[in-house]
Amino acid sequence: MNKDAAAESIYGDVESIRELGPLVHNITNYVVMNTTANALLALGASPVMAHAVEEVEEMVGLAGAAGGALVINIGTLSSEWIECMRMAMSEARSLSVPVIFDPVGAGATRFRTETSKSLIAEIPPTVIRGNGSEIMALVDGSVKTMGVDSSRTSDSAEGCARALAESVNCVVSVSGAVDIITDGKTVLRVENGDPLMAKVTGLGCTATAVIGAFASVNRNFVAATYHAMAVLGICGEIAAGSSQGPGSLQMKLYDALYNLNDEEIEAHLK
Amino acid sequence: MNKDAAAESIYGDVESIRELGPLVHNITNYVVMNTTANALLALGASPVMAHAVEEVEEMVGLAGAAGGALVINIGTLSSEWIECMRMAMSEARSLSVPVIFDPVGAGATRFRTETSKSLIAEIPPTVIRGNGSEIMALVDGSVKTMGVDSSRTSDSAEGCARALAESVNCVVSVSGAVDIITDGKTVLRVENGDPLMAKVTGLGCTATAVIGAFASVNRNFVAATYHAMAVLGICGEIAAGSSQGPGSLQMKLYDALYNLNDEEIEAHLK
Amino acid sequence: MNKDAAAESIYGDVESIRELGPLVHNITNYVVMNTTANALLALGASPVMAHAVEEVEEMVGLAGAAGGALVINIGTLSSEWIECMRMAMSEARSLSVPVIFDPVGAGATRFRTETSKSLIAEIPPTVIRGNGSEIMALVDGSVKTMGVDSSRTSDSAEGCARALAESVNCVVSVSGAVDIITDGKTVLRVENGDPLMAKVTGLGCTATAVIGAFASVNRNFVAATYHAMAVLGICGEIAAGSSQGPGSLQMKLYDALYNLNDEEIEAHLK
Repeated sequence: MNKDAAAESIYGDVESIRELGPLVHNITNYVVMNTTANALLALGASPVMAHAVEEVEEMVGLAGAAGGALVINIGTLSSEWIECMRMAMSEARSLSVPVIFDPVGAGATRFRTETSKSLIAEIPPTVIRGNGSEIMALVDGSVKTMGVDSSRTSDSAEGCARALAESVNCVVSVSGAVDIITDGKTVLRVENGDPLMAKVTGLGCTATAVIGAFASVNRNFVAATYHAMAVLGICGEIAAGSSQGPGSLQMKLYDALYNLNDEEIEAHLK
Repeated sequence: MNKDAAAESIYGDVESIRELGPLVHNITNYVVMNTTANALLALGASPVMAHAVEEVEEMVGLAGAAGGALVINIGTLSSEWIECMRMAMSEARSLSVPVIFDPVGAGATRFRTETSKSLIAEIPPTVIRGNGSEIMALVDGSVKTMGVDSSRTSDSAEGCARALAESVNCVVSVSGAVDIITDGKTVLRVENGDPLMAKVTGLGCTATAVIGAFASVNRNFVAATYHAMAVLGICGEIAAGSSQGPGSLQMKLYDALYNLNDEEIEAHLK
Repeated sequence: MNKDAAAESIYGDVESIRELGPLVHNITNYVVMNTTANALLALGASPVMAHAVEEVEEMVGLAGAAGGALVINIGTLSSEWIECMRMAMSEARSLSVPVIFDPVGAGATRFRTETSKSLIAEIPPTVIRGNGSEIMALVDGSVKTMGVDSSRTSDSAEGCARALAESVNCVVSVSGAVDIITDGKTVLRVENGDPLMAKVTGLGCTATAVIGAFASVNRNFVAATYHAMAVLGICGEIAAGSSQGPGSLQMKLYDALYNLNDEEIEAHLK
């Protein structure tokens, strides 16, 4: 697909999100609840945060009825939250609601690695998005070693992403200077973004939430994930272009998501 | 009351808040803790967040001693928090501390609807603020049907608001393009605000918190609620007027609350 | 030490933080999780938030291995979190990881005063930072009275700070119009900052987190704390200088932390 067609396809999804305002149910970490809600609103989606065992299944049902998605993010995990994540993911799977999973900190502590692995094995998500070390932590030893043997980090990340996508039968997105999106066979790359984005907390989590919005309107989940990562990267570039630092970048990112038009996508898409 | 007198009365409360810095105790949701604290500070009030059963009664006592208020918001409810809300509301009632209740998501899930109804029935708050569907969810079936039979949504919302205000014996505020404030008899309307405000997460919750500040300095709770909704709407207009999107609107809203003067209120009040 | 030498020494630490990106593990309150993470990132440190008993010791170990620090803040305390704070502080002490403790609301409720006193007595932190009333609440009655007898509030705060520093054998920082930093013997003062900073929620908590970054790169903890308070005060001044209110101040503060250079420190340090 050439760039113009890709840009058109990305913008088509943006228009759908703005028109349909899909309900994106987030069970996410305390750090980013406010900022991911704002990113989803700016983009045109309808975020809701709910984590009580008494209501998560019902809320997933509402997201499903409204053509939405479920976002699970373990960034400030505690044991009480695992059961509500499991319930929500299970209900989403039974209702065919797309589940976007963000294994924040997998590989850093055993608690996060094991919780992520066990949730994914039990209830395979639709899309998994993380950085290289998080994705590698979810892949079993032999593949990881193979990956690490590779001469380039991006090769390693790609190998792990493909292996994880194949074994879980889902889409995997690895964030980095170049984002990788794969279903195990097709591999897409997003080269948009700006290094200053790494100085704003939770933009990875924001990417995960934004994938939820795109997966709501585009059931080709490789394409939806690619579109989401491209939009966040492009809006990050637009915001960074007139920012004096990470504070202004964060503010301008919401403005950019809200105002994004087809010409900007065409101009920025790499 | 004509507009000039209303503007003067609104500004009088703003000056009182800035002078007295009332302590507003919030038991609220994770998404808006930071942003509602910032709105209260910008306005001149003193926010505190505390939810532990070990301290909520003592904190309500401090708010009472400082002429403050209690804000209860169920936006990210879990069962552990219900008991602390009940304790705080009960203590506030016994100390005549105004209680502002925000039934976020009532009508969406049974857990939120039932928790809201039960808390309100057990310990009637001073003011309830929500959007139309939340307020309607708190009204029993017959009234709601009557409301829905009405030809205009605003009639429906007004009917429900009046019915709820009468049955609970409190002030009810329904947020929308036009905000409705009623004690069941008097009905006031605020036509200020900007559609872009709906693209910033938690500005409804911010309204609820701001009512807490006004109820601290004005014990005519219909007037206090009207003043709060007018101030938030006016500051939202001022902020939107120089914003490029929801990111800049949120930032400028705090600046507008901090700088609000009598001339701006007069110029913007509709 | 003259001002030029102090400015140079401050900037040396800033450069170390930017170069080393120390891991600062925060167990903090819901209100400031996002904003303190952003301040740490803007400064060049690597924040992580983790509070589960299953992982706090392991995360402290990671912070230790990366030359980082542990920040404990009781701003939205509940009983479940106390045990994880105790575990993390204990592990940090055994690994010689600096612990920065913020007794938010000590003196306001018994729960916060007693929790703070008991944590500090059991596992003495490296640095305690609070406002005057919080620090006074941690000092026993006789010293406090002595302090209050003093003719000036700042004398009182200084007396309490010195007494607490001596009894706990740590560094104590009292925030105010003039910040006081002491180990019980040496007393340093930071006169930077802007009154508008008090209208942004959690800048005290941000100071505590920023001390964590400086304590990671400078094991002279009096100096590290002084440097942190000076940097936050200076960046607050820079941000306030072009702000229209607390909303823009908060945004510009992150930009100022990110861009801070040696000339700005020299020009602003009082």
